[in-house]
Amino acid sequence: MNNLKYYLSLVERIFEEESFVAEPRELYEPIDYTLRLGGKRIRPTLLLAANALFGGNTDEVRGAALGIETFHNFTLLHDDLMDRSPLRRGQPTVYQKWDENTAVLSGDTMYALAWRYFLRQPSPRLQAILQCFCETGIEVCEGQQKDMNFERMTLEEVSLEDYRDMIRQKTAVLLAGALKIGALYANAPDDDIERLYEFGLHLGLAFQLQDDLLDGYGDTAVFGKKTGQDIRDNKKSYLPLLAMQIGNDSQRNELLTLFAAKDNMDEEEKVRRVMALYERMNLKSAVEEAIEKEFRTAVQCLDTIPADEALKLPLRELMETLAGRKK
Amino acid sequence: MNNLKYYLSLVERIFEEESFVAEPRELYEPIDYTLRLGGKRIRPTLLLAANALFGGNTDEVRGAALGIETFHNFTLLHDDLMDRSPLRRGQPTVYQKWDENTAVLSGDTMYALAWRYFLRQPSPRLQAILQCFCETGIEVCEGQQKDMNFERMTLEEVSLEDYRDMIRQKTAVLLAGALKIGALYANAPDDDIERLYEFGLHLGLAFQLQDDLLDGYGDTAVFGKKTGQDIRDNKKSYLPLLAMQIGNDSQRNELLTLFAAKDNMDEEEKVRRVMALYERMNLKSAVEEAIEKEFRTAVQCLDTIPADEALKLPLRELMETLAGRKK
Repeated sequence: MNNLKYYLSLVERIFEEESFVAEPRELYEPIDYTLRLGGKRIRPTLLLAANALFGGNTDEVRGAALGIETFHNFTLLHDDLMDRSPLRRGQPTVYQKWDENTAVLSGDTMYALAWRYFLRQPSPRLQAILQCFCETGIEVCEGQQKDMNFERMTLEEVSLEDYRDMIRQKTAVLLAGALKIGALYANAPDDDIERLYEFGLHLGLAFQLQDDLLDGYGDTAVFGKKTGQDIRDNKKSYLPLLAMQIGNDSQRNELLTLFAAKDNMDEEEKVRRVMALYERMNLKSAVEEAIEKEFRTAVQCLDTIPADEALKLPLRELMETLAGRKK
Repeated sequence: MNNLKYYLSLVERIFEEESFVAEPRELYEPIDYTLRLGGKRIRPTLLLAANALFGGNTDEVRGAALGIETFHNFTLLHDDLMDRSPLRRGQPTVYQKWDENTAVLSGDTMYALAWRYFLRQPSPRLQAILQCFCETGIEVCEGQQKDMNFERMTLEEVSLEDYRDMIRQKTAVLLAGALKIGALYANAPDDDIERLYEFGLHLGLAFQLQDDLLDGYGDTAVFGKKTGQDIRDNKKSYLPLLAMQIGNDSQRNELLTLFAAKDNMDEEEKVRRVMALYERMNLKSAVEEAIEKEFRTAVQCLDTIPADEALKLPLRELMETLAGRKK
């Protein structure tokens, strides 16, 4: 049977065989650059594996695989512009390498191109497929807006529930949507699609919480970036939000004081103090437990789908990879 | 029979009955603001009239009418950001009233919402409809990029043909696409759709050339903005490009010198001199002739469509309005 590696290399091949260069080149060069930067290609891989899970023909979802990844990269391109992030995957972001207007317009064009990829392949369930893609896009935008809103709020103003809802929209629905679209192309039963979508949501939540955890506790060599950046950025990630929930009054006050510190404290000193506080609260294992819970729920969803166990293999492998248990 | 006024008021009603407010409000308030700013609503009006031309049911294209106008307003919102335009329809633009990030993200969301409106209404020709909407979007982006490229080029580097191609993509294909989509929803014959599309292209070209002409020769009271702005902006509009083609060597050199003038000449003095040069070249009637030619070709396309003449009335009226012969 086909394993995760098979689908990952299939996605790579699909991207290698596709040309993103067109005229005017000022518009398409940044698009080609963005789509050739690589990345984990998780979403198209999920789409292909979900399609195969229900006996779909991989050749018929090449367009959708390109579409979902092009959409994802469009959101990264515009997010990088809005966040003023200089680097993505170790390379300059489009707004840095070119300029802001290029980032706006090339991003818009990528969204249109994503639709073109989806429309390439007819399907009896095309309307449902496109509706899923469309609603996913709207949710991702809403999630990004909520994320931006949180930046202007204090740690006390953001609840753990609000945060969870934000990452569900910004991250999880796209993983879930990729799975749903793959299953729709294979004309899977609606009940199974619903379970697969739930699997994707919990996988996505676990994935984002894992990312939050790694910011504090990741191995810089493996993680690829310096730890503690969320603390330097005063980001209301899952870590401080959970700390606010499980901490006692004195711990909450200490965290609030550290988050309120601006120029009066050295950045690295702040990181050290916040991490020491987390240590005393045993925050790491509390976060790990929350991640484990999401993964467990995801596994339960996958288990209930009546499909060939061998065909579930790549999805289980991907989950293990995201959980950091398999490289 | 229904006239242009009927369709215009129908479009107004469709927009009045639709709510654009949702959560998070930071995302949707700018969208509601943009879609309530008004404007001529030409594209949805064309869509409804084209649908009726082939016996379509107006109720079935409400979503498409909302979708095409939401898309158009999305492009204006992002164009205003890229051009740093402070005003649109006499009101502050979104990036001015809110900020740049809001303009990026609310614009992206409007594009997604436009797709949602289109997907509301099933149709046996849905794939063709969405393909037309998608390709139109890509062309509009390409046209905008070409327009931005022209800003960095000299008057000599832009040919009249390049300019025509740019305005075809940036302006005309959306008018043509609106007509085509309306006709597709009515399941019109492909030949007729092709003719209607051509009608829209020439109508759009005429409309843009007219706009270029009005910048130089418009009545400020009617036109709503100060004349000569394209000259102040050194814009390679149809006027200087045609002047370069029909002028003699000395006239071309004079125009190039005026376009190259920067701080060494008072802006109003520059406008006066360029307009005086146009006067000596009799440029106004040359442009009017070019516009007239586009309108004539548009009429010919419309004439060949075998549909009830009474149903063509709103399209003819719209053409007259755009030609400035009817208010």
